[in-house]
Amino acid sequence: MIQYKAPLKDIQFLINDVFDFQSHYKTIPGGDEATPEMVDAILTEAARFSEEVVSPLYQSGDDGCVWKDGEVTTPKGFKEAYGQYVEGGWQGMSAPVAYGGQGLPLSLGVIKSEMIGTANWVWGMYPGLSLGAMNTIYMHGTEEQKQTFLLPMTEGRWAGTMCLTEPQCGTDLGQVKTKAEPNGDGSYNLTGTKIFISSGEHDLTEQIVHIVLARLPNAPEGTKGISLFIVPKFHVNADGSLGDRNPVVCGSIEEKMGIHGSSTCVMNFDAAKGFLIGPEHKGLMCMFTFMNTARIGTSIQGVGAAELSFQGALPYAKDRRSMRSLSGTKHPDKVADSLIVHPDVRRMLLTQKAIAEGGRAMLYHAARLADFMMAAHDRGDKKGYDQFDDKLGFLTPVLKAFLTELGYEAANHGVQVYGGHGFIKEWGMEQIVRDTQIAKLYEGTTGVQALDLLGRKILLGKLKSFNEFRAEVTAFIKTHENRAEMKPLIKQLKRYMLQWRINTFRVAYKASKNRDMVGAASVDYLMFSGYVMMAFFWAQMADKAYTGMKSGKGDRDFYQAKIHTAEFYFDRLLPRAKGHAKMMLKDPKTLMQMKEEHFAF
Amino acid sequence: MIQYKAPLKDIQFLINDVFDFQSHYKTIPGGDEATPEMVDAILTEAARFSEEVVSPLYQSGDDGCVWKDGEVTTPKGFKEAYGQYVEGGWQGMSAPVAYGGQGLPLSLGVIKSEMIGTANWVWGMYPGLSLGAMNTIYMHGTEEQKQTFLLPMTEGRWAGTMCLTEPQCGTDLGQVKTKAEPNGDGSYNLTGTKIFISSGEHDLTEQIVHIVLARLPNAPEGTKGISLFIVPKFHVNADGSLGDRNPVVCGSIEEKMGIHGSSTCVMNFDAAKGFLIGPEHKGLMCMFTFMNTARIGTSIQGVGAAELSFQGALPYAKDRRSMRSLSGTKHPDKVADSLIVHPDVRRMLLTQKAIAEGGRAMLYHAARLADFMMAAHDRGDKKGYDQFDDKLGFLTPVLKAFLTELGYEAANHGVQVYGGHGFIKEWGMEQIVRDTQIAKLYEGTTGVQALDLLGRKILLGKLKSFNEFRAEVTAFIKTHENRAEMKPLIKQLKRYMLQWRINTFRVAYKASKNRDMVGAASVDYLMFSGYVMMAFFWAQMADKAYTGMKSGKGDRDFYQAKIHTAEFYFDRLLPRAKGHAKMMLKDPKTLMQMKEEHFAF
Repeated sequence: MIQYKAPLKDIQFLINDVFDFQSHYKTIPGGDEATPEMVDAILTEAARFSEEVVSPLYQSGDDGCVWKDGEVTTPKGFKEAYGQYVEGGWQGMSAPVAYGGQGLPLSLGVIKSEMIGTANWVWGMYPGLSLGAMNTIYMHGTEEQKQTFLLPMTEGRWAGTMCLTEPQCGTDLGQVKTKAEPNGDGSYNLTGTKIFISSGEHDLTEQIVHIVLARLPNAPEGTKGISLFIVPKFHVNADGSLGDRNPVVCGSIEEKMGIHGSSTCVMNFDAAKGFLIGPEHKGLMCMFTFMNTARIGTSIQGVGAAELSFQGALPYAKDRRSMRSLSGTKHPDKVADSLIVHPDVRRMLLTQKAIAEGGRAMLYHAARLADFMMAAHDRGDKKGYDQFDDKLGFLTPVLKAFLTELGYEAANHGVQVYGGHGFIKEWGMEQIVRDTQIAKLYEGTTGVQALDLLGRKILLGKLKSFNEFRAEVTAFIKTHENRAEMKPLIKQLKRYMLQWRINTFRVAYKASKNRDMVGAASVDYLMFSGYVMMAFFWAQMADKAYTGMKSGKGDRDFYQAKIHTAEFYFDRLLPRAKGHAKMMLKDPKTLMQMKEEHFAF
Repeated sequence: MIQYKAPLKDIQFLINDVFDFQSHYKTIPGGDEATPEMVDAILTEAARFSEEVVSPLYQSGDDGCVWKDGEVTTPKGFKEAYGQYVEGGWQGMSAPVAYGGQGLPLSLGVIKSEMIGTANWVWGMYPGLSLGAMNTIYMHGTEEQKQTFLLPMTEGRWAGTMCLTEPQCGTDLGQVKTKAEPNGDGSYNLTGTKIFISSGEHDLTEQIVHIVLARLPNAPEGTKGISLFIVPKFHVNADGSLGDRNPVVCGSIEEKMGIHGSSTCVMNFDAAKGFLIGPEHKGLMCMFTFMNTARIGTSIQGVGAAELSFQGALPYAKDRRSMRSLSGTKHPDKVADSLIVHPDVRRMLLTQKAIAEGGRAMLYHAARLADFMMAAHDRGDKKGYDQFDDKLGFLTPVLKAFLTELGYEAANHGVQVYGGHGFIKEWGMEQIVRDTQIAKLYEGTTGVQALDLLGRKILLGKLKSFNEFRAEVTAFIKTHENRAEMKPLIKQLKRYMLQWRINTFRVAYKASKNRDMVGAASVDYLMFSGYVMMAFFWAQMADKAYTGMKSGKGDRDFYQAKIHTAEFYFDRLLPRAKGHAKMMLKDPKTLMQMKEEHFAF
């Protein structure tokens, strides 16, 4: 049985020592509410909720949802846990005060989502999807739409979904066929089929608010003819009470590899009444707000998988006895040494640990940028908003793809540490692998993220965001390169940063000669970027750990472990970037020369 | 739905063009039976059986086995398929004529197992485990034991298992506790619990013959006190008919990540009657015969996973339309271009293809060595036997770990090609991932194989087998290095071989100073070895493909595709070896310095 324990010490190290959230909160609206006491209380309570309420439902939830006549029953205990979540006011924590929220910084919401999502990612998807829908309504809805829909969603009484994918298209949303016919009264009737709709139907809330991509009559073809609609499960009366059932019905749920407790729905829209949100034909642009949030949300799944799998593997590695250490017996009084004496087992554990902690740092950094972005939005500062949106847009594909790929790797290490037992359901280790596989697929596959990074953010963006990020790293390097204890890490970081820059130019040059270079280089470019980016955050953590050690305050052992993990990262994970660097520069020839009909005979 | 199609063209290319099995068969006993016509007939019929009988049961078999009161029911259709298998005489194909087999070369049996195992690995485990048990009885049993047990097993009427693992130990078999008390009549009573026993109980055969590790009274502690026993499910009467039930009972079956259709049993031995096989206390040594076969058998699972996942992904990549090629629209008349135009999708498909075909070549090479080994055994040539046993023993851990790791990677690529659909059970792609995960665990995890390779086969073996293998590659290089078309590949192969040699010496030197170096370097050493070894086989295939092209005979397109795949392998997969080369030379410090109690706070 896996039991989650919130890594509060690590979380506090990040928000206090590394990122100094308190100073940062003083500069953003709502931040003054986030006093050290308030933050502490939230962390403690979120940890308790995650550990005591949702963690125990993780393995049992694997039994899955049940569909019957269009209704979906979630796994035993999910509904009760959701009740406690609503009661705790968790859904509205970072939502605007004007619409029923507590207005606390978004970054605190990310930490809450991380704890819940690590304890039980599957359960966390229900409120998580809803947060994305809330964000879209907040950013693009009319005041009336906000009053009608956002308020009860903020309370958690209503839930939300995002309905993008159709049978014929997922990534390529220009192929969306669902139709929206105007009723003449400002409302529309939507007809079509959406698939892979997470939380499309369930028994947790009285109402579900679908955010739907569809085409108006005579809309231009492709991506420029798609609009965004709100389609509630039940019509909403003028007084906010629920009316009749809207004909948007869950036709079936998917049988899938993992996240069995999350309902993945086929949603049939049969002239279901909906309301336009945002401008006509600009649906995809509005959706991108949703997507950035969703993608950063998905990167939490990678961090969570690494953390939970590490938490599962560590006690087993300490308890299970197998063979003797090759460097001499470590536990002569026992029948054999514990697994953790073996270097290769340590390699797997430290890989999990370095991914979890490094990924957490990347995530909190992104959350801090999101705080600034939302603050700019709320004060109507379009320029400021765009600036942080660009910064975040550069990080988003890296976090989403790199952290989910590494989270999946970490989950696999967890299985390997257990040997054959890792394959057995009872231990829970294999479930983390199954549940994490989807993180590399939804909200855009790794390949799609890689094209977004290299094609859009780097090449189309003319390296602007990349140069800004590089400037931050350069400033950090300058500040620390003469500190003796930091020198080994800084020296490496500097070398990799230089390589990143040079290789970006090289790839860009080659891509200007051969457009297939973009697709051929993209995944390696993204993975390289991820490793170097994570190295920057590991260097920052090492810096603060050294400072902490010297201060004589705090937990010396914790700081020591942090430094050792940073050293492990630089020594054994960061060098993987070299392989990606070489691969990204390769000519696409060996990928492209084979004729389609020659792949198989 | 996944439907397997036997890659007969590739199989024939290997056994005819690359390995010239016909010349080879002329030198081994039973080989004269394996005429080209016979081989052709066997391949055709094995392909038919795999495609038509067991492939359709692959996805439906995922519903799993049912345990009730000690009895196990296999998935629908498994029993009928097994009936056809027995009727076709498949189980005895490569078994000795003296014990009811056809005496055909073992290598043909490997090809048969590959086809069946690729079509439906889970179904294939039932006869597969039995082959291992048969092999052990053949190698170590008395004539009476062979007459009693081997004959009906060869016919397929009886099945067999290997009972090694216990709750407290898997890898570390020195901890085995199961007891064997002599009855005074030459038989023993076995008492204990074995877990993870594949095919421990099922409804396919009337009898199951367990090969069991247990301790005699007063046996020395550890690995030197373990003996091997035959324990049948039913007692066998003097006339060979079945008698009473022996108290060896399946207590339960495991719920696991994959291979649901294979029964993974807890077997309770409650004074079950058994017979010693091989010398007292030498059970582990006898078991190693079993293990080498089983490990090479497991490497088939890696090849099969790559092949089947590739076969599943390719048509989807051709049919599914998403986005436009960045180098210009390829299908302007369609709503979008097909997935296969995108370089990153091609990267995944070619990776699967290169792994499947390269792995198949490594496997057939090993199978050829096994032919020689068995031939030496049959003519009582101990020296010859040991020589091929050593050669095979060097290949075994590489094939087992490297091919299953890469097969797992390939299966994951198959899911990625499908995007979100890859996660859905209906398509079958996720099942291959779940079923292949176990290949990295059973018969010794990747870490255990790596220690076997570096610790035992390389260091303890004083590089003997390594040098023999190297000599083969060097001879190949000398023959081909001046051929213009082969130069690019040979140049690289030469460089990597040199690096393999140098790094082996370096690792050995470092390990002599610090024993933790062995464990720290082992997995990278194994993966490096695997990539270079596979490069040797890709070079051999390229050589024969060039020859085939020049001959003007055969399928020019096939040869061209083979050369393109070889180029892809050398260009984009082989360079991964460099990363492993660097990593294996690292000091173990960053792995070992963290205190056990500092892993988590």
